Amino acid sequence: MAGSLQCSPSIVSRPDRLCSTDQSLGAFPDSGSFRSVSFSSQFGNFSLKSLGTTRQLHPYRTSVVVKAEGSFEQMEVGITLSPRVNSVKPSKTVAITDQATALVQAGVPVIRLAAGEPDFDTPMVIAEAGINAIREGFTRYTPNAGTLELRSVICHKLKEENGIFYTPDQIVVSNGAKQSILQALIAVCSPGDEVIIPAPFWVSYPEMARLADATPVILPTSISENFLLDPKTLESKISEKSRMLILCSPSNPTGSVYPKKLLEEIAQIVARHPRLLVLSDEIYEHIIYAPATHTSFASLPGMWERTLTVNGFSKAFAMTGWRLGYIAGPKHFVAACGKIQSQSTSGASSISQKAAVAALGMGYAGGEAVSVMVKAFQERRDYLVKSFRELEGVKISEPQGAFYLFLDLSSYYGAEAQDFGMINNSESLCRYLLDKAQVAIVPGDAFGDDTCIRISYAASLSTLQAAVMRIKKALVSLRPAVPV
Amino acid sequence: MAGSLQCSPSIVSRPDRLCSTDQSLGAFPDSGSFRSVSFSSQFGNFSLKSLGTTRQLHPYRTSVVVKAEGSFEQMEVGITLSPRVNSVKPSKTVAITDQATALVQAGVPVIRLAAGEPDFDTPMVIAEAGINAIREGFTRYTPNAGTLELRSVICHKLKEENGIFYTPDQIVVSNGAKQSILQALIAVCSPGDEVIIPAPFWVSYPEMARLADATPVILPTSISENFLLDPKTLESKISEKSRMLILCSPSNPTGSVYPKKLLEEIAQIVARHPRLLVLSDEIYEHIIYAPATHTSFASLPGMWERTLTVNGFSKAFAMTGWRLGYIAGPKHFVAACGKIQSQSTSGASSISQKAAVAALGMGYAGGEAVSVMVKAFQERRDYLVKSFRELEGVKISEPQGAFYLFLDLSSYYGAEAQDFGMINNSESLCRYLLDKAQVAIVPGDAFGDDTCIRISYAASLSTLQAAVMRIKKALVSLRPAVPV
Repeated sequence: MAGSLQCSPSIVSRPDRLCSTDQSLGAFPDSGSFRSVSFSSQFGNFSLKSLGTTRQLHPYRTSVVVKAEGSFEQMEVGITLSPRVNSVKPSKTVAITDQATALVQAGVPVIRLAAGEPDFDTPMVIAEAGINAIREGFTRYTPNAGTLELRSVICHKLKEENGIFYTPDQIVVSNGAKQSILQALIAVCSPGDEVIIPAPFWVSYPEMARLADATPVILPTSISENFLLDPKTLESKISEKSRMLILCSPSNPTGSVYPKKLLEEIAQIVARHPRLLVLSDEIYEHIIYAPATHTSFASLPGMWERTLTVNGFSKAFAMTGWRLGYIAGPKHFVAACGKIQSQSTSGASSISQKAAVAALGMGYAGGEAVSVMVKAFQERRDYLVKSFRELEGVKISEPQGAFYLFLDLSSYYGAEAQDFGMINNSESLCRYLLDKAQVAIVPGDAFGDDTCIRISYAASLSTLQAAVMRIKKALVSLRPAVPV
Repeated sequence: MAGSLQCSPSIVSRPDRLCSTDQSLGAFPDSGSFRSVSFSSQFGNFSLKSLGTTRQLHPYRTSVVVKAEGSFEQMEVGITLSPRVNSVKPSKTVAITDQATALVQAGVPVIRLAAGEPDFDTPMVIAEAGINAIREGFTRYTPNAGTLELRSVICHKLKEENGIFYTPDQIVVSNGAKQSILQALIAVCSPGDEVIIPAPFWVSYPEMARLADATPVILPTSISENFLLDPKTLESKISEKSRMLILCSPSNPTGSVYPKKLLEEIAQIVARHPRLLVLSDEIYEHIIYAPATHTSFASLPGMWERTLTVNGFSKAFAMTGWRLGYIAGPKHFVAACGKIQSQSTSGASSISQKAAVAALGMGYAGGEAVSVMVKAFQERRDYLVKSFRELEGVKISEPQGAFYLFLDLSSYYGAEAQDFGMINNSESLCRYLLDKAQVAIVPGDAFGDDTCIRISYAASLSTLQAAVMRIKKALVSLRPAVPV
């Protein structure tokens, strides 16, 4: 059969390598053989490295001929993957974080500033609620949409803090906001529909649109406009096919916060397009620095009916490992999300749901425990902005929320680094910084903006100080090569 | 616009009702207004009950015209759902379980035998590991595929207990086996591919195939053959489009266990078809009654390369609320599952993963704690089989594993029940039993066999005794009306 590959008997006797046709497809950083610091090239390629040659496979109707150990004669195995999964990239932030962790475990002193994860422990009152849930045997299936108790306190929170009114049957609790967003896209997008995504964007939005058979339509923004969407640009890109606009404020990766007035302008445009819904990702809501304030898109006049509000517990409450998020919206849409969830994961962890109830009981905007964390984030933001402003050839938009700094370092592109080679984009710059400065940060191209890199400041001030020193040193050593 | 609906102002002022166009689409049993005992009719209908009339909506390009509270004029909202989600049914077992729970919470003394959930508490050593994970702050993101620690002990388990050899990079841990199966189907199925599913089947398999844009091909089996797949039937249904065969042993809903010899016959057929992979759902592996024994399909000669082995912690270890399962298989396929997961949920709960490590440390097949539970299940199985054999007009295949009895009660169809109406299928029979006997069981049509009903015996012997009495009484009262 054309395109099939004859495996050698030595490989056949080791089934663990037999179908290991793609060393780089998944993110399995801690599997031992993972020492490379290259990451961009990990994605999307499809080569048979395990067979000793790097050979491109035809993506469809491909098979591997194997000779099995038992009684069967030589036979083929079709190793085709679905076109949908082939079109989707794995999460680069997840992959780089996993990889940096593996390097640290292997003894390389990498400073990890790639993850979207608070460096704080889950507040004690939440942890205790989780422990009590286990002790009390609250370890059974919950309703698919989440416990009524949790959905009720979520409704209360959304009313008190966000000015949006939902009933528990308009909430679906999921294993993280990521799942909430994907399910929403799968629920409402028909093939050919367009999902409008302002760039820089969270890495998963376009891939989720593809998983939903929709087409991501990327709207660029500019660092000089603080990465905020220009309503005119939005209006010019809306078509009959536009089904969803994704807004993320405070933003990952830029830290931008949409002012209420701008959201109102956007709402006026949205209102003119019956098919256009809005997914408002508000996961960083509480991590916001005065004078910036958070506005829930669904609270704007006329927008409740067409907005799906997504939020979760990972970021504000330092609960990443608990895996809990939710969606709120008109029942028609949210029930469809619940239907998908009933066939994909069912209800989220019963233990995490009890913990989440405790989180929402900590007071307005998470109370004292959360404001202490936000204060620390703000100090770090201030430190980083100040430090990088001292650096030549950098452009900065001061973040108003979240815990990311999205720096334009494109003036360093074109430099030739000793023992490294050419730096010509965000990926090679980040690879250089990982190699030379041993700091793991995420290239901007993962977020749809190749001029920038994303630094997560979910790390202690002393760690950030060390990282800044290393990064500056590595960048300064590039500087002579750059034409001024 | 054709098909649009003018909402009255009184509805507009209550956004919680505005888009509540489908009271029945999702499973939100505990939202207050949920007192009906009908369930079959809940699925798939799409009517605007909240507007006072029951009006069918066109599934595409449908919108609701609303008049908003604020400054905007009358506007429309497109309420279309994706064709994919429209084609998928919500999980009936989840819905009925949720509904029965809601009835109990409302004071109706329903005996719940619908859930696929052990009635035991999570063993103490597992619970303690979860508590320790929280205490020690192991509450951060884990690698997408799961912690190396957990994947390593899973590999050890699969080697020792199942005779199948995997490395940690051939494992992806998910939020339950349900997610593992869906991701596998999405990873390997291209549009138009067929997924072969022997019936009776677990409710989610066909819906998951649809979510993966594949076509479920149902192969009926017979109670007289203990619901085991006839290899000849399989062979006759395999085509170029066949991409996946799903096997579930021990089986939900029948309790059947595939003998090794039969699996070998199936493997010989599979081996002749290069495109055909096998998903082996082994979630009930440990809940098995001697002399039946479990065979992992991947352990058969030549099958490792084409089998995706799915297992989890919910059933054997009474860990349903912890949400943890996994898939094992050739890296090429499993990495694709990991890629999907990285864009849908990321890694599962860190706390649950620590608990799962403890579960696999409890000894061979879960050790003493699990064997005590299995012994209890076997006693209940024996009791139910004996009790129902005394009933007229019932056909039974004695379950060899899992905790379900799949009874053929079709001889009662055609009966007219007083104050109820005609019983003419499994759904009306179950509705009758819920109404009259207040026992919640799942109609066989949810599992692809309308002659049967599924009784879950994950309930104490005394509860089962009460349930049997109620069911028998309700069935006996039907008997005179049935022609002999």
